[in-house]
Order: sequence, then C-alpha cells, then structure tokens
Amino acid sequence: MAEGLTSTSLRGTDSHGIRLIHHYLAGIKSGRINPRPSYSVEKRMPTVAVLDADHTFGHAAGMEAAKLAIEMAGEYGSGNVAVKNSTHFGAAAYFALEIAEHDMIGTSYTHSDSLIIPTNGKRSFLGNNPVCFTAPVKGEGPFCLDMATSIITFNAVRRLRERGEKAPENVGTDKNGVPTTNAEEITMLLPVGSYKGYGLSLMVEVLCSMLSGMPYGPHISKMFEDLTRKRYLGHFIGAMNISAFTEVEQFKERMAMMVDELRNEPQLHQNQSVMVAGDPEKICFSNRNVEGIPVSDQEFEDFELLNKKYRLGVEMGK
Amino acid sequence: MAEGLTSTSLRGTDSHGIRLIHHYLAGIKSGRINPRPSYSVEKRMPTVAVLDADHTFGHAAGMEAAKLAIEMAGEYGSGNVAVKNSTHFGAAAYFALEIAEHDMIGTSYTHSDSLIIPTNGKRSFLGNNPVCFTAPVKGEGPFCLDMATSIITFNAVRRLRERGEKAPENVGTDKNGVPTTNAEEITMLLPVGSYKGYGLSLMVEVLCSMLSGMPYGPHISKMFEDLTRKRYLGHFIGAMNISAFTEVEQFKERMAMMVDELRNEPQLHQNQSVMVAGDPEKICFSNRNVEGIPVSDQEFEDFELLNKKYRLGVEMGK
Repeated sequence: MAEGLTSTSLRGTDSHGIRLIHHYLAGIKSGRINPRPSYSVEKRMPTVAVLDADHTFGHAAGMEAAKLAIEMAGEYGSGNVAVKNSTHFGAAAYFALEIAEHDMIGTSYTHSDSLIIPTNGKRSFLGNNPVCFTAPVKGEGPFCLDMATSIITFNAVRRLRERGEKAPENVGTDKNGVPTTNAEEITMLLPVGSYKGYGLSLMVEVLCSMLSGMPYGPHISKMFEDLTRKRYLGHFIGAMNISAFTEVEQFKERMAMMVDELRNEPQLHQNQSVMVAGDPEKICFSNRNVEGIPVSDQEFEDFELLNKKYRLGVEMGK
Repeated sequence: MAEGLTSTSLRGTDSHGIRLIHHYLAGIKSGRINPRPSYSVEKRMPTVAVLDADHTFGHAAGMEAAKLAIEMAGEYGSGNVAVKNSTHFGAAAYFALEIAEHDMIGTSYTHSDSLIIPTNGKRSFLGNNPVCFTAPVKGEGPFCLDMATSIITFNAVRRLRERGEKAPENVGTDKNGVPTTNAEEITMLLPVGSYKGYGLSLMVEVLCSMLSGMPYGPHISKMFEDLTRKRYLGHFIGAMNISAFTEVEQFKERMAMMVDELRNEPQLHQNQSVMVAGDPEKICFSNRNVEGIPVSDQEFEDFELLNKKYRLGVEMGK
C-alpha cells in the first residue's frame, strides 16, 4: 500500500497518492480493511484466476493479481485475473506499469462507487471507472494510458470550489441531474464523450463486477461513508506476453519510434507540445524522484501526527 | 465478407455495411485484395497467435482470428490474435459479437489510415481506431460497445455537407489543423474527450501495429487512394472464457439485471430513454431483420448493375 501510494504521488497523481494513507488507516481501525489477509486463488483454466483478496488493501490485492497474471502470461502467453472482496486500489497505473516492466502489455481496471450519470439519465449509476493500458518502450518508462471515464474528476470539482471558480459546461450536474457550471452544486459527473465514456465505464463494470461476482454500480458501498462497511470491490488485471507475438526488442524500438514521431509533430499553439499518454506523469516523476513529493503544511502536520502516534521515529523536517 | 456487410447493415451501421461491396470488388480487380488467400498462423505460446491474412478481405481474416481466439479460450481460458497483412475489416462488432455468442467476452480492434489530430497537434496522425467489447446477456443479444475514437465520424461530416449544415464546435478541423464548424472545410477529426480519445486511439494502434509488425498512423496506406496498393493493416481480436471465471448462467443473468436496471433509470428528458451500448443497433436489427435493409435508388441501381455484370441471376424488385 505504501509503495502504491508513493509511486502514485511521485507520478503526480496526488488525488490517489500519499494523502490517502489516513483514509486507509481509518479503514483498518473501523474493520473495513483487513491488514492480514489470507488470499485464496481459484483457477479453473490455465490463463484465468479469481483472487479472493479477503478485504485487504486494494493496492496489495492488485499487485498480487498482477503477479499471477505475469506468471500465467510467462507460460501461456496471457494471464487474466479477476479480484473479488477487495477495497480501493488507488491508481490503476501502479499495476499495469509493473506488468509492462516485464515486457508485457498490461491492463488494469477497477469499478468504484456510483458517481457518473448514464446518458439521458438523471441519477448516477456507474462509478468513474478507469481504463488503464501499458506497453514497454525502448529507452524510457512504459507507455501508460490511465484515464477515468468522466470528463473531469470530483477532485477537480473540489479544487474549483476552493478557488471559487466555475466548472466548464456539461461536465457535472446538480442533485437533480441537471448540468450546471456552479461547482458548489455539482454532485454528479458526466461521462467523457457522452455515450462513449458511459459505454467504456460499463465495459469496466462488466470486467470488475460480473466476472468477480461483486456488486455493481449503485449497489457498491461508498468509499467515504460508513467505514465499518466492507467494500466488496472487484478489479480486473490482464497481461499479454509480447514475446509470444513478436521480437520484444523490435516491439520496444518501434514503440519508441512512434512516440517520438508523435512528440515531434507540429504544434497548433507554440506553448503546448504534442505528448503521448503518460508523458505528464513521466516528467513529474523525473522531478519528484529528485526533489521529493510536495505536501501542504496541513498534510505535513498530518504525517507528523502519524509519526508520533505510531512511534515510527522518522526524522521529519521541511 | 458478404456476411459481415449484411449483418452490419442489419444492425444499422450503414457506413460499414453493404454499400461498401463495390469498394471491395474494385480492390480485388486492382490487385489490392486477394480473394483466394493462404492463411498462415504463427503460434509461439498456447494463447497467442499471429495470423497472416495474405491480403484477403479483413472480414474473412477477422472471423478466422475470432475462431482461433475462441478455440484457445475454450482450452486455456483466453485467446489473443494479432492479424497482419490484412485489409479493411468493416465494423469491429462483427467479430466481437461472434465471440460473445460462444459465452465469452470478446474484444476487437483495428487501426486505420490517419484521420485524427493528436491533442495540441495540427496534423492527423492516428486513424479513427475503434474499440469494441462484447459480453453475453441472458434473454437477448450480447452487450456490445463499438466506438470510434473521434467525436463524430467522417461520414457524419459528409452528411452535414450534403444537408448544408454546420458541424458542432470542436469536432473537426480545416487543413491547417484549426477547428472549424464549416463542414465543407473539415478534413481532419478531433478525438473524443480530447487527450482521452487520443490515448485510446494510441492504445488501439499499439495492439494493431506493434504486435503485428504492421505500419502505424501516417505510414498506413489510404483506404480510398491508389487501389493497387496493398493495405498492410493489422487487427487485434481477443476472447476470454467466462466459465473460467464464474458460472456462465449467473454471469448472463446478472448482465441482464444490470442492463435492465439501467434502462429503467429515470430520464432527464421524457423523449430520451436511458440505453446501454448496442441498444440502438439491437432495435435496428429487430426492425431490419423483418423489413430488410433500406437502400437509396442509387444503391439499388448499383446492386442491379452487379447482378447483371456477374450474371448472378438474383430476382430484384423494389
């Protein structure tokens, strides 16, 4: 869990990074999260596994699933793992990036509690279910697409509220499902590309709820409500062995050629360069890996409190 | 090919349906398409295959790949096929639906010639690469998401031109990459959800170009230019065996519960109901399966000409 949060913050995804540790620790105390799980794995066929996470940290369960997927793909060419009885797993990229480090194509999905309105609806049904896909690239970190299926995240709505700013049009709705630009009134989000993002979110729900037998959409327990309730979340992790398709070195060289070609495309506006998915995170990682993860004064104090409370004896200074 | 085009037209995807037959027949004549292929399959591992399509119809090659994927998934739980040396395969749904009919999760992807502008760029690079995902549902046809990664298709632009209408804002650009609502001036399309659709299109390119060794993005030959040039297209077809994860009947019943729950969600506007991906195509299929596929007078004449030219002796009447 610590590794997942830290690597996520290093990549700049602060919403899913180290600041969430307090939430998870509270979840252990309340009985939602089981810090000493007994995993069990059901395997009916050589390239499919269902991992029962025994209500432990989603980060740990997801990484266990990634290892299973990598193992199966190493022997049979591909591996697919549905995870059940899990909890919030943080950023999907953490698992798919691990798979790409093994010269495999990685995919990682999770469902989450209801937040997105289906097209033409007025109530949220599906969560902001992310789609994540990775592939190794020669000479740099893996290509990594990790996208939520809403247009903006709820964290972005919170930041707009803090700054007293308006939201863009048609990204969120009020409690009656009517689109509004008033960030204070936004309680639900609209899917990216209307019915396309809604369809992708539903695809993720099929992979994470239906294959694992976990609840779906509005039947999923809320992350930030009643911490005594178990989450019963499902994830899906997949790995495909590149060497089963083609020469790995050639694949990685061609990946590097393609992403470099894209980065060198002429820009529409001189101050905005063409990037590929995961580039902003790569740039952030290089900086933060040297300079550290920036935290607010409040966050620093919260970590100091943890340090004292659990007598960790970490030397802390600003 | 005929089966692919007909089922696609029955589902209402007219842009990829029977009207394209003339294009494919011209492709045979010009030497682009090989109507008598010798397929070859390379298998390095039990759940991965690379199918060399020998430049035949993409429809035929894709269905051959789907059969291979289904076979592997039947024995090992999953099957993944990269197709190389192929041509335009029509609508991605045709293959993924076949997989879902075998009680499996189906995925199907193809790349295509350059049409979409990468975020912040001013030239098209990737094609309007579709993402397709299917899963069986009890009591009805499979759930089917089949989405292009642009906001609107180029066919939609052509229809706007014919009707002298303006395009919505920020769906297409002129030849300099500047967004325009003038349908006559639109030569390139913008990705759905900006960098998210662009990222999805790149994901599809990785699956279809990198795993198969085929050219990518701007290096792909144009569908409607120089019909003597071979296409060298790649596709990716995947199957996952649901029975390897869970009881198939339970999976399909829960799918039916979820889609019905969504269809019964309260509507924002009374004239627009909540649907799930593939519902418009299901409705169209039920109608056209009884009433036939509507064709314009011009299309009817074109089919009459084919009937005569190849002495098919089909009795044709309006």
